[in-house]
Amino acid sequence: MDSSDIQRKNIAVIGGGLVGSLHACFLAKRNFQVDIYEAREDIRVTKSARGRSINLALSYRGRQALKAIGLEDQVVAHGIPMRARMIHSLSGKKSAIPYGTKSQYILSISRENLNKDLLTAVEKYPNAKVHFGHRLVKCSPEKGVITVLGQDKVPKDVTCDLIVGCDGAFSTVRTHLMKKPRFDYSQRYIPHGYMELSIPPKNGDYAMEPNYLHIWPRDTFMMIALPNTNKSFTCTLFMPFEEFEKLLTSSDVLDFFQKYFPDSIPLIGKQALVKDFFLLPAQSMISVKCSSFHFKSHCLLMGDAAHAIVPFFGQGMNAGFEDCLVFDELMDKFNNDFSMCLPEFSRFRIPDDHAISDLSMYNYIEVTFSRIRYHEAVLHWYWQKKVINRGLFLFGMLIAVSGTYLLMRYKSPRPLDYLRRPLEWVIYFQNTTGFPVNSLESLERTPNVISK
Amino acid sequence: MDSSDIQRKNIAVIGGGLVGSLHACFLAKRNFQVDIYEAREDIRVTKSARGRSINLALSYRGRQALKAIGLEDQVVAHGIPMRARMIHSLSGKKSAIPYGTKSQYILSISRENLNKDLLTAVEKYPNAKVHFGHRLVKCSPEKGVITVLGQDKVPKDVTCDLIVGCDGAFSTVRTHLMKKPRFDYSQRYIPHGYMELSIPPKNGDYAMEPNYLHIWPRDTFMMIALPNTNKSFTCTLFMPFEEFEKLLTSSDVLDFFQKYFPDSIPLIGKQALVKDFFLLPAQSMISVKCSSFHFKSHCLLMGDAAHAIVPFFGQGMNAGFEDCLVFDELMDKFNNDFSMCLPEFSRFRIPDDHAISDLSMYNYIEVTFSRIRYHEAVLHWYWQKKVINRGLFLFGMLIAVSGTYLLMRYKSPRPLDYLRRPLEWVIYFQNTTGFPVNSLESLERTPNVISK
Repeated sequence: MDSSDIQRKNIAVIGGGLVGSLHACFLAKRNFQVDIYEAREDIRVTKSARGRSINLALSYRGRQALKAIGLEDQVVAHGIPMRARMIHSLSGKKSAIPYGTKSQYILSISRENLNKDLLTAVEKYPNAKVHFGHRLVKCSPEKGVITVLGQDKVPKDVTCDLIVGCDGAFSTVRTHLMKKPRFDYSQRYIPHGYMELSIPPKNGDYAMEPNYLHIWPRDTFMMIALPNTNKSFTCTLFMPFEEFEKLLTSSDVLDFFQKYFPDSIPLIGKQALVKDFFLLPAQSMISVKCSSFHFKSHCLLMGDAAHAIVPFFGQGMNAGFEDCLVFDELMDKFNNDFSMCLPEFSRFRIPDDHAISDLSMYNYIEVTFSRIRYHEAVLHWYWQKKVINRGLFLFGMLIAVSGTYLLMRYKSPRPLDYLRRPLEWVIYFQNTTGFPVNSLESLERTPNVISK
Repeated sequence: MDSSDIQRKNIAVIGGGLVGSLHACFLAKRNFQVDIYEAREDIRVTKSARGRSINLALSYRGRQALKAIGLEDQVVAHGIPMRARMIHSLSGKKSAIPYGTKSQYILSISRENLNKDLLTAVEKYPNAKVHFGHRLVKCSPEKGVITVLGQDKVPKDVTCDLIVGCDGAFSTVRTHLMKKPRFDYSQRYIPHGYMELSIPPKNGDYAMEPNYLHIWPRDTFMMIALPNTNKSFTCTLFMPFEEFEKLLTSSDVLDFFQKYFPDSIPLIGKQALVKDFFLLPAQSMISVKCSSFHFKSHCLLMGDAAHAIVPFFGQGMNAGFEDCLVFDELMDKFNNDFSMCLPEFSRFRIPDDHAISDLSMYNYIEVTFSRIRYHEAVLHWYWQKKVINRGLFLFGMLIAVSGTYLLMRYKSPRPLDYLRRPLEWVIYFQNTTGFPVNSLESLERTPNVISK
């Protein structure tokens, strides 16, 4: 495609969240005409609504994508390095487990600030425009038409050469692709919910060691805390919904924290704990898989719209950002030809995004520090020396698998279902073998191995 | 609920196909105000469009549901008993395998005639009305409002106490439930497509033995033929799409049939074969699972809308009809109380509908002649004496499972995916063990065992 062809191509990016605004930067940099349609108002002007996680872990893949559009340094400057996990035991004992070598760390980043930076970056391109307060009503990829609803509430048709759905886990673009021939799709909610709490600054400084991802692992539930630049921490409590539902009164909550997270109570503060606990109900977590990620040369899904994953790997945003980078590399390779890039993106990227989805369910964190393709990381995960040395354990697992398989087939009312639920398998193994596969405590036995 | 309460309750049934019209009969019989909204015109007046299978196998479950609304005898009178499968070997040799005892048979039924009978039956109730040419645009179960579009193309809001989605595999009602909290969903297309062909009468009579379900099993593809009352047969060819795509010319098609189904060529006729083969492209087959089947006491999914299954078990319609019967039994048990019946329907029925979905993938046919709950049938399937006697085979399977499991984990780019694909497992077992689990030839080794 020559440069005048590129300048004539209109691309509609649906969603101006993290992935949408980053991807728009990549496309604008290539001189396409880029229009972002974002349902919310401009978060740089209006106060953003609660409901999404406040901060996120930015790691290598995400940084590489930001680097490619010249934003890495700026974003990193506003992040707080986390060089290790800090495990809080029930007794209050703390032990650090580094992510890798001394020079390796992940960054705690404010979702809101990052999104603002990305929106400002995309608006610097004269060939890009962000349409805030514009909700996608309908899209017809084969016709190259989208229908959006702005403040005037009058549906407006817009023609475009490519529609990119970056509209998140509940993507409207994807619901249109779901009706296309042979589009495979699944959405599954896990039994856990999450809730955000806050640890305020203490005497003007962080109340805990700042350069750590703090973790309180407690069997089927756990709490984590990430530092913010205002010297507070945002805590996230993960727990099965049925456990949340048992905590109905202030004293239920305080008793529960006293039992499981006693050291966190003075940090959060009793009053704030009770107030925040009942501020919002626990939020659900969805895992979405689909195939393919594209429709002909007209439509593409990226980020959570293509592969919403559970957050236990801290890779949701990073995987979405890497989508943009992978697509950009394909655009180089195929000279901006959509008819080549889109199918190749599906073919190349789906195995990796499905792999990070599975890895997230398994909650290992070996792959945080490289750009090794996720699906290769899964292979490494099995092949690494440590696992081979643990051959005896694997053999035990195998016995357990076989036993489990038979047991479930004979005993369960839904014998075949279990085969398709990785999380339950993991929990089952954990219960069976005593090996805490699903708990972050397993980190102690499996320090990260694939480092760059 | 007393009788005047019942008469005041409006139920909107979306879809006037087989399950929708049957379910409307059940509800109308209970004196509810029932409105069916059907997107197509009245098939008793206009010619129906092609695209759905022409005939279907009605078996015990489906008959029990028809019996409950007094339609069994009428429908059975228009069906053609099929007392056995007739296996056509490559050499043209035919061998019959009975479904059960001499008195047991399934019925070949015309979809169109059955649908007409059910529509006529529902319209006999003064408290039921069928609105043809009315497409569902939107539904808001919590508000009890549906929006339909009639011939005048003006969206019309209708209030109702219960919305029942009987709108098939691509259900619009279900797409609205998908946005509700914690609704699990998956849709998966299998690699096979299907195509319908026809064997016309010969000298005014059936060209083959009529009281059989004719089967040409051929490894990864197969053809079946069911008799019609006009003395023709409708053939269905099942084959991977990639095989269909290889047949581009008339001579490709004739060569293919000469190679694999030589005895069918004179029956179908060369000219008709080529003409019908290229009339429509091969159709895809989708398997849909979801959970739950209801939303609060406002909305319910039934039939294909709740559980579209692949057709290899001949249980799609029968499972949908049994849904209606099960719901009716719950309405008796809970005195027509929606707030009790709906959750109980999900709790009770989902394991069975997921089981028939899995069984359909596995293509066994042991459960055709009873109303044993499907999930118990799965247990039987394993526990039956024959299988126990085949302990050695199971052991081999187990070795294969373990081997497969490891092999796939280490070799496959998507190691975890396979665990969730029953069909591939079956094919893998077949290839590994030589046991044709996926072929109807396996019937010879596993004659039906659960008979009423």
